[in-house]
Amino acid sequence: MLVLSNEEISELLNMPDCMAVLEEAYQDLAAGRALYSLGRDNLAPCGREDAYYAFKHTGGTWPSRRIQALRIKSDIISHPFVEGTQCRVKLPLAGGRWVGLILLFSTETGELLSIFPDGVAQRMRVGGSSGLGIKYMARTDARTLALFGAGWQAGSHLMAALAARPIQEVKVYSLRRESRESFAREAAARYGISVRAVDSPEECAEGADIILAATSSMVPVIKPEWLKEGVHIGFIKPQEIDGVVLDRCDRVVVHVNDKSQPDNVVTGTPAVFKNSGWWQEEKYRMEKFPNLADLISGRVPGREKAGDVTCFYNNDGLGLQFAAVGSLILAQAEARGKGNDLPREWFTESVHP
Amino acid sequence: MLVLSNEEISELLNMPDCMAVLEEAYQDLAAGRALYSLGRDNLAPCGREDAYYAFKHTGGTWPSRRIQALRIKSDIISHPFVEGTQCRVKLPLAGGRWVGLILLFSTETGELLSIFPDGVAQRMRVGGSSGLGIKYMARTDARTLALFGAGWQAGSHLMAALAARPIQEVKVYSLRRESRESFAREAAARYGISVRAVDSPEECAEGADIILAATSSMVPVIKPEWLKEGVHIGFIKPQEIDGVVLDRCDRVVVHVNDKSQPDNVVTGTPAVFKNSGWWQEEKYRMEKFPNLADLISGRVPGREKAGDVTCFYNNDGLGLQFAAVGSLILAQAEARGKGNDLPREWFTESVHP
Repeated sequence: MLVLSNEEISELLNMPDCMAVLEEAYQDLAAGRALYSLGRDNLAPCGREDAYYAFKHTGGTWPSRRIQALRIKSDIISHPFVEGTQCRVKLPLAGGRWVGLILLFSTETGELLSIFPDGVAQRMRVGGSSGLGIKYMARTDARTLALFGAGWQAGSHLMAALAARPIQEVKVYSLRRESRESFAREAAARYGISVRAVDSPEECAEGADIILAATSSMVPVIKPEWLKEGVHIGFIKPQEIDGVVLDRCDRVVVHVNDKSQPDNVVTGTPAVFKNSGWWQEEKYRMEKFPNLADLISGRVPGREKAGDVTCFYNNDGLGLQFAAVGSLILAQAEARGKGNDLPREWFTESVHP
Repeated sequence: MLVLSNEEISELLNMPDCMAVLEEAYQDLAAGRALYSLGRDNLAPCGREDAYYAFKHTGGTWPSRRIQALRIKSDIISHPFVEGTQCRVKLPLAGGRWVGLILLFSTETGELLSIFPDGVAQRMRVGGSSGLGIKYMARTDARTLALFGAGWQAGSHLMAALAARPIQEVKVYSLRRESRESFAREAAARYGISVRAVDSPEECAEGADIILAATSSMVPVIKPEWLKEGVHIGFIKPQEIDGVVLDRCDRVVVHVNDKSQPDNVVTGTPAVFKNSGWWQEEKYRMEKFPNLADLISGRVPGREKAGDVTCFYNNDGLGLQFAAVGSLILAQAEARGKGNDLPREWFTESVHP
């Protein structure tokens, strides 16, 4: 049973491979050859007035690669006000660290094959799925990217855009000048293309073929008036847009369009802050949009003409993404002898369970 | 992060403690102070024609003890014919062993506290819940027990009956003479009471105050004509009775009465054998019966008069049972310095997930 760290995993993954393996997984999902189990948030008091415990477990079954994945989120969540806006912040109370885990099992033997923290895999699967949105929807000649955000998710979204299209020019905007400038400097050096930090959202969006938001913003980032003919937009949080943005798109695809289950809440759990907005309106219910597997399998078309405005909303995760990225991680770790191998006996038993 | 074995756990648990902690958990559940997440079977091909892969994950949140439990079943299942009856047999393909795991997390810090195989905990929680059925429903002066089955679950059911009532005489019946005789011999020696293997089901049931079935039988074990005034019956599998047995009871309580979700199945999964029977009839739907938390919290009465015939059907498990028994295991393991302590850093991360 292989224990891997985020540091090891980041050396094992690259975005083109992640996108390729995710693409295969969505094809299999559309064909009934893979599945996922959705979870729901289980919320409970954590012993503090200003926070609560949230637990969620979601699975993904991918027999083509002989992998069952389980993703576990075990978070202490608080809702502080940051610059006047109420946010959702996970507290690092596990010895100053956070807890999110991926478990991989063999669908051939049942065995637990690996446990690793979810951070790097999470980043690569979110970026990778947004990259598939670009691959199937953006104009094939897209050369300019407007990127909102300069954090970890913005980094994987940049990788994904570069993997999907011949991007030559990137403009980056984020709230803090220092962050966007250091992000731009590092990205320019790493990818050998023009990456420029700009001082206003409008300047960032101006003339872009692709606009991506990968921020922690609680207020809209992508403006409807930017949706010029032929543009592709992508975002990961509902707060990053206004619903009217979707009205202006010729094609909207979401990552997951299952009806979600309500939270499961222990009595006495401190007030859970729920941001409200356009996504609660009937006409924007996720079930009304096709999902990424529909798009990749050809059940729905992506871009139909050069002038279409297309949109991929990477709304929720699927355990199946972790089966896909996990199968890569495991193969690479085994090939390169990475990780800490623990005795199989510890995670199996001699009695019929 | 503490790794424990079945052998270690069996030294840490006793049935009276398990029943006490389960009772507290059901009280909390009834009061909204605890919760569970139900899972569903995720079925997929396993690479063999005669078997398939089955994955299930269920959670239980118990903030009073600061524990979140996750139970994981990762099985290769076959349906061989054994003496003319089609059975459900899990194949030990993980290096000759089976896979079932419990993970415990802290609801105060989110941290993964422990991983252990589910075998011993599974046995103790099933027996313990059946024991609570006895505690709340059997006549308080019940002295004779008829036990069907001589396996592992029968053993924990005997422990539970002894913990709940002043049992003086036990009769045991199972199909194989050798098994029932060695079971009776060992139990008599261990508990210092009369435990006798008998040669027919009728002889076993004759005169018993409590009749328990804890078998792997696929045909009825408890006969309706045995339900004399004042008897309490308990069983763990629907095949162990006929529906008419329930018709004759004055009070029937089930362990779980939520509507279960259908299986999630990958295309091409080898035929899944589903035993059919009385439990599919409308009048026996589990949602129609009260559950164990209803009984323990007093929402529904148990036995109302000495002559009542009562029944507890321990139909399905709850992740919450593992939070309860798990909290005991963890406290005992820590107090006695048991288990293999792995570095916390392996199961946490330095990035906001």
